[in-house]
Amino acid sequence: MARELAGIDTSGLEFFYNPRSIAIVGASKNPDKPGGRPLAALQNRGYAGKIFPINPRHRELAGLACHPTILDVPDDVDMAIISVAAEAVPEVVGQCARKGVKAVVIFSGGFSEVGPEGERLQQELREIARQGHMRLLGPNSLGLINFANSVTASFAHVVNLEPASPRTVGFVTQSGAFGGLVYFEATQAGVGFSSFTSVGNEADTEFADVVAHLLDDPETALIGGYLEGAKDGEKLRQAAEKALRVEKPILIIKVGRTPAGARAASSHTASLAGDDQVYDAFFRQMAIVRVETIAELTSFAILHRSGRKFRGTRVAIISGSGGHGVLMADKCESLGLRVPEITGATREKLSGYLPSFGSGRNPVDLTAQGGRDSSMLGNCVRAVAGDENIDIVMAHAVFPDHYGIARAKELIEIYHSTRKPIVIMTHAHHASEMTTKCIGMLEDAGVPSLQDGLQAAQAVAKLAWYHERVQRIGSGRPAPEPEQAPARDELARLLRGSDPLSEFECKRILEHCGIPVTREELASSADEAARLARELGYPVALKVQSGQILHKSDAGGVALDLGSEADLRRAYDEILGNAQGAAPDAEIQGVLVQEMAKGGVEVILGSMKDPVFGPVVMFGLGGIFVEALEDVSFRIAPLSRSDAEDMIEEIKGHRVLRGIRGREPADLDAIANALLSVSRLVTEHRDAIEELDINPFMVFARGAKAVDALIKTRPAQRLGEENP
Amino acid sequence: MARELAGIDTSGLEFFYNPRSIAIVGASKNPDKPGGRPLAALQNRGYAGKIFPINPRHRELAGLACHPTILDVPDDVDMAIISVAAEAVPEVVGQCARKGVKAVVIFSGGFSEVGPEGERLQQELREIARQGHMRLLGPNSLGLINFANSVTASFAHVVNLEPASPRTVGFVTQSGAFGGLVYFEATQAGVGFSSFTSVGNEADTEFADVVAHLLDDPETALIGGYLEGAKDGEKLRQAAEKALRVEKPILIIKVGRTPAGARAASSHTASLAGDDQVYDAFFRQMAIVRVETIAELTSFAILHRSGRKFRGTRVAIISGSGGHGVLMADKCESLGLRVPEITGATREKLSGYLPSFGSGRNPVDLTAQGGRDSSMLGNCVRAVAGDENIDIVMAHAVFPDHYGIARAKELIEIYHSTRKPIVIMTHAHHASEMTTKCIGMLEDAGVPSLQDGLQAAQAVAKLAWYHERVQRIGSGRPAPEPEQAPARDELARLLRGSDPLSEFECKRILEHCGIPVTREELASSADEAARLARELGYPVALKVQSGQILHKSDAGGVALDLGSEADLRRAYDEILGNAQGAAPDAEIQGVLVQEMAKGGVEVILGSMKDPVFGPVVMFGLGGIFVEALEDVSFRIAPLSRSDAEDMIEEIKGHRVLRGIRGREPADLDAIANALLSVSRLVTEHRDAIEELDINPFMVFARGAKAVDALIKTRPAQRLGEENP
Repeated sequence: MARELAGIDTSGLEFFYNPRSIAIVGASKNPDKPGGRPLAALQNRGYAGKIFPINPRHRELAGLACHPTILDVPDDVDMAIISVAAEAVPEVVGQCARKGVKAVVIFSGGFSEVGPEGERLQQELREIARQGHMRLLGPNSLGLINFANSVTASFAHVVNLEPASPRTVGFVTQSGAFGGLVYFEATQAGVGFSSFTSVGNEADTEFADVVAHLLDDPETALIGGYLEGAKDGEKLRQAAEKALRVEKPILIIKVGRTPAGARAASSHTASLAGDDQVYDAFFRQMAIVRVETIAELTSFAILHRSGRKFRGTRVAIISGSGGHGVLMADKCESLGLRVPEITGATREKLSGYLPSFGSGRNPVDLTAQGGRDSSMLGNCVRAVAGDENIDIVMAHAVFPDHYGIARAKELIEIYHSTRKPIVIMTHAHHASEMTTKCIGMLEDAGVPSLQDGLQAAQAVAKLAWYHERVQRIGSGRPAPEPEQAPARDELARLLRGSDPLSEFECKRILEHCGIPVTREELASSADEAARLARELGYPVALKVQSGQILHKSDAGGVALDLGSEADLRRAYDEILGNAQGAAPDAEIQGVLVQEMAKGGVEVILGSMKDPVFGPVVMFGLGGIFVEALEDVSFRIAPLSRSDAEDMIEEIKGHRVLRGIRGREPADLDAIANALLSVSRLVTEHRDAIEELDINPFMVFARGAKAVDALIKTRPAQRLGEENP
Repeated sequence: MARELAGIDTSGLEFFYNPRSIAIVGASKNPDKPGGRPLAALQNRGYAGKIFPINPRHRELAGLACHPTILDVPDDVDMAIISVAAEAVPEVVGQCARKGVKAVVIFSGGFSEVGPEGERLQQELREIARQGHMRLLGPNSLGLINFANSVTASFAHVVNLEPASPRTVGFVTQSGAFGGLVYFEATQAGVGFSSFTSVGNEADTEFADVVAHLLDDPETALIGGYLEGAKDGEKLRQAAEKALRVEKPILIIKVGRTPAGARAASSHTASLAGDDQVYDAFFRQMAIVRVETIAELTSFAILHRSGRKFRGTRVAIISGSGGHGVLMADKCESLGLRVPEITGATREKLSGYLPSFGSGRNPVDLTAQGGRDSSMLGNCVRAVAGDENIDIVMAHAVFPDHYGIARAKELIEIYHSTRKPIVIMTHAHHASEMTTKCIGMLEDAGVPSLQDGLQAAQAVAKLAWYHERVQRIGSGRPAPEPEQAPARDELARLLRGSDPLSEFECKRILEHCGIPVTREELASSADEAARLARELGYPVALKVQSGQILHKSDAGGVALDLGSEADLRRAYDEILGNAQGAAPDAEIQGVLVQEMAKGGVEVILGSMKDPVFGPVVMFGLGGIFVEALEDVSFRIAPLSRSDAEDMIEEIKGHRVLRGIRGREPADLDAIANALLSVSRLVTEHRDAIEELDINPFMVFARGAKAVDALIKTRPAQRLGEENP
C-alpha cells in the first residue's frame, strides 16, 4: 500500500497557547505536586483567562470553585490539563471530548514509554481525541508554557523561574527533564523563551507540528529543539521548509545515534547510511542549525536577536591580549570563518591608534596599552567596521571604572553607525560592578555581547553558516517537476520486471529516467554475442544476467576487456558455466554484451529508504574511496539542483573530480543531472523501490555512463501489483 | 656546520622558585604599578625571605630600607626583579651580575617584541647574563609566582587572587595576559596552581626549560602551558620525555597556525606538512595533551588530582534525565570512549533498583523517580562500579535538601570502596546551599566532581587517551640504535654524489640503509639497456637519470611497461631525446633499466626539515589518496617502532592496507621497517638531508620496494664538504 504523506497538522494548536479557559483535572493545593504547580503558577503569573480546578475531593481550591469532573464546569473549557493516574486518563479524556474541550495536555506517565500495554492505552487516547476533534499534548509530557500570556500549563520546576528578556526562543523538547535544564541555563545566560513545549510521547501533537505552529507566533524569532528522533521525517521537512519561508532559524540538539551496524545492509548505499548521517544531511539540506551544547543555543540566540544578518565569513578580531586574539583566530578559522589580513587605509589607521609594538594585522592586538588608553578600542572597532573587506567584527572589551561608561556609550554609538554585525566579548565573570553595568547598557541598546570568546566564535560561525545556507537554498525550495504520467506508468511497468531485477532491466529503467548508460545488448547465444560485439566494437565486457545472481563477479559471471571474437566466445562459455555452477537454480536471462567504459572517474550514485525520512539519495567516489573511507554524502529526496551540487562538493575526495594529475575536470553537471534523475525516480516510485545502486557511474570530461546498476524493489508492493 | 643539539638547561632555575632573598629594581609604593605589585604581594602573602626594594628616589619603601642600586644592598641577593625602562635594563642587569645575583626576572618591555633594535638590546642582556652565570626570565615577562613559598615575583593582577587548593598545576605561558586569564578561570573552577611562570621573550629561560624544571617540583602533579611556538623543538622533546619518565602529564593550549602555503615546497612531503600538523604529531608522539579551552585544562586537572588511572575506555553513564544520558553517550562515543551495553548480573541488579520504565542499559536512566528515591543513585553507581566490563563510571547527582548529606556520604563511601575512576556530574549552578555543601564534601574526600557533563566527558576522554598513550610509549622512549661508523661514513659519501642526486644515487642510499628497492641497473647505451633488461626480465621501465631532471615524467624521460627488446630500443631513443629537448644542459648519467613493480599498494614515505623540530618523517597512501585527501601522518625523528606503527594506523585510508576487495593485507612490518630506516637516515645525516621522498613505495603482501626516490641535500653542507 502506498504510504500516505502525512502533512503537518497545526489545526487547533492555538488552544494550547491561547486558551480562554483552562481546567486542571487532578488539581492539588500543593504547589510541589504536578496537579498543583500549574494551578499556583497560573494564578501567580496572572493568567487572564478562567481557571477551573477539577478534583472530587475538594469544593474549593486556591480560592477557586473546584468541580468533581470537567463535565460539572458551568462554562466552556478551551484547554484541559490532566494529572491523574494512567488508567483513569481515558475516561477523563472522554469527558473532555464530551465537554467540547479543544486541547488536552496530559502530564500522566504510564503509556507507550512503559511497553505494549501502555501503548494500547495511548492508542485509546488518540482515538478518543480524534473522534472528539481535540488535540492532545503528551501523554508523559511536562506540559507547555506560553510566556506572552502566562499560560503555565506545566509542572516543570521552571514555571517558577522568572524568564529572561527579550523572549525570542520557542523551545520544543522530546525530553521534559532535559528541556527544563535547557530553559534553566538559557535563563541564566539571559536568553528568554517565548514558549516552552514538552511533547512527551507525541500521541497526537508531534515535535514538527509544534515547530510549524510556533513559526507563526510573532513573538518567536527562532525555534530551539531537543530531538531524539522525528516520528515523521516528511513532517519535519515541511516544518523546516516553512521556517525557511518565514526566515526563522531552527536550532536542534539531536541525540540518539544508532550503531550503524543495526540495519540489515545488502548494498553499499544501505550499509553506508547511518541514521545520524542522514539527520546531518537533512539538517544541512534544510538549513537547520545543529548544536551540541546548550551554550551554543543561547549564544546563537543572543547574536540572532540583534537582528543583523551575518553575511560573509571575513572576521576582524580585536583583543587586548595577543594570546587570546590568536586563540580566537585559530578557532574562527577552524570553524570555516576567515580572519583576513587587514590592509590599505584601515591598516594605516590602526597603526596610528596602536602602540608601536601592537599588531595592526588581524587579530588586532591592543596590547596591555589598550587597558590604559580609553580611546584605542573604540578607534580600532570603528576602523575595522568601516573596512569593506571585513564582514563581522569581534571585539574584546574591558570596562575599567574610570571610563567604562564612556566606552560602553562609544561602542553603542559605533554599533548603530553601521549595519555590520559587531560582537562584544567580555570576561564578565571578572565582573566589577562597572562591567556588569556596562554590559547591561550594551544589552539594552541591542548590542550583542558574550562572555566567552570561543563560544562567540562558534555562534558567529553558525550564524554565518545559517545565512549562507538560506541564501543558497533561496526562499522556499522549488518543487521538483513531477514525471509525466506516461513515463511514470512505463517506469512502474519496468519496475515490475523479474524479481529481483537484473542489471539489464535496471539499466533500462535508468535509461528511461534520462540517466546515460553503457551501450549494451542482451545475447542468448555465443553467436549473438559475437554479432553484438562486432556492432559495439571491441573491447567488450560480458556479464551473465539473472535476477538471482546479484553479485555477478563473485559468481564468476563477468568477463572484462575482451579484445577479440575468440576471447569473447571462450569467455561466453566460461562465465555461463561459472554462473550455473554458483547458482544452479538461477534463471538466466542471457548474457549482456557491453562496451568497455574506461578512462573516467568512478563514482557511486545510490538511494536507500530511511525509516524516518523515506528515500535518501547518496553520492560517493567509487572504488577504493568508498571502501576505505566511506567518503559519501546524503540528501533526502526530492533533491533540488543545489542539493545535488552540495552533495558533489561535500565529499572529502572532491578534488579528484576537479581533475588531478593533469586530468581534465569531471563533468559535474552530468553527475548532478543523474542525481536529480535518481531523486525523481525514487520519489515518484517510493513505494516500489527499496534500494538503488549505480556503481560504478563513470564520469568523463564530458558526459557520464552508468556501468553497473542494482535496483531492489519492494516485495509487498510487487505482491500487491500482482494480486490487485 | 652541524647544528648543536641544544639540551635542556635547568641549572640555576631553582633561584627563581626558591630564592632566599629578592631585590626589586624599580620598586614602587603604589601596589598598582609593576614595581609596586610584587613588593606588596610578597609582604602580604608572607614571603619568608628578605626583600630589598631598589629605587634611588626613596630611602624606605613599605617599611623596608630602600637602596639606590642593587650594589648598595648589604646582603646577598638570590633573585632580582627588574621593572625599569628598557634602555636602563642592560646596566641594571650588569649590576646584578656584579652583585652575584643568581636569577633575574625582567618585567620591562621594549625588546625583541618591538623589532631589530630591541632584539639587539635583548642580545646584550643575554650576553651579560651568560658571562655573569645568571638566569634570566623575560624580558617582557609578567614574572612568576611560586605559591608554596609565596614567591610572588609578578605584576600580574592574579597575585592578588587567593589560589584554589589543592595546588597541582605548574603553569607556563608565552602570553602573560592570556596566562593571567587562565589563572583566573582556573581559580574560579577550583583548580589550584603550584606555580605560574610567564616566560616573556625567552631571552634565556625558555618554555621547555621551565617545564623540565617544574617536573622535579613535588607540588606539581601536572604541567599546563600556553604555547605559541617552541623556540627549540628538541628541548621541548626532552622536557616531554622527562614528563613521561616522571609520569606527569603536560597539557598545552597551542595556538598560532601558520598558513600551510607559507613554506616553499618542492616535493610532496614538504608541501603536505603544515606547522600545526607537525605540532599535532609531536603532541601525540610525546603523549602531550592538547587542549583548546581553559575549561578543558581545569576539568582534566580536577580528574587528574583524584590520583586514579583512567585505564580503558568503557564508560557507564548514570543520569536522572534520559535526554541528558543520551547526549552524554553521544559525546563519549564521539570522543573515542565506548558506552557498552550493561549485561548479566549487573543488568539484573539494575532492574531491581530502577522503576519499570527506567533503562538498565547504558546510559542508565534513573527517570524522575531517581530524584524521589534516595537510594537509587547509590545502588546503581555501586552496581556498575562493580562490573568488570566497565572501566569508568560517570554519574549525575542531585542533592535534595532532605537526603543530600546522606547521598554525598554514600557516594564517598562507594568511591573509596573501589579503585575505579568515578566522576560525579552536578549541575551546581542550580546550586542550593545543600548542593554546594555536598559538592564540598565530595571535594574534601577526593571524589572528583564537575558541573558540566559534556566537559566531564571530554576530560575523561583526554585522561583515557593520556594513559593509553603513556602505556603505549612505555616508560621512557628507547634510544634508536645509532648507525655503525663505517656505514655512516659510506652514507655520507653517497650523499655527496651528483648535485642534485639522481634517482639511481638515491636508491643506492636507500639500499644502504636497508630499504628494499626495485632491481635496476644504469645503462649508457641502448645495447647495454637491452642486455640489462634480458637479465632483469621483461617488462621493464626506462628512466633517464640526471640530477638536473628531477621530474623525469614531466620531461618525457620515462617509459613504463616495455614488454620487448624492440619496444625498449624505441623507447630508449625517445626518452633520451625528450630529456635533452626538455633540459639541453642537463648532465645525463645514463638510463635506468628497472623491473616493473606491480600489484602492490602504493604508499609514500618521506621526510622534511621542520624549522622547530628538525627532521620529520611522513607516511601516506600514494597516488590519488595523497593528492586528493592529503591523507598523511607525521612524526618527529627519531621514531620508535610504536611511532612507526602509529603513523601507519593513523591515516584515514588505513583500511586500504588491511586488504580490501579481497586483497591480502599489505606487509605493515615492511612499511614500519622502512619508516624506521628513513628515520635513522635523516637523524644521523640531519645536516646533509633537506628532504626525502620515496614515492611510490610499493607494498606487497610480503615485502615492499622503493620504486622512485628523491633526496634533496643541503647546499651549504655540500659546499662545506667540498671546501673543507
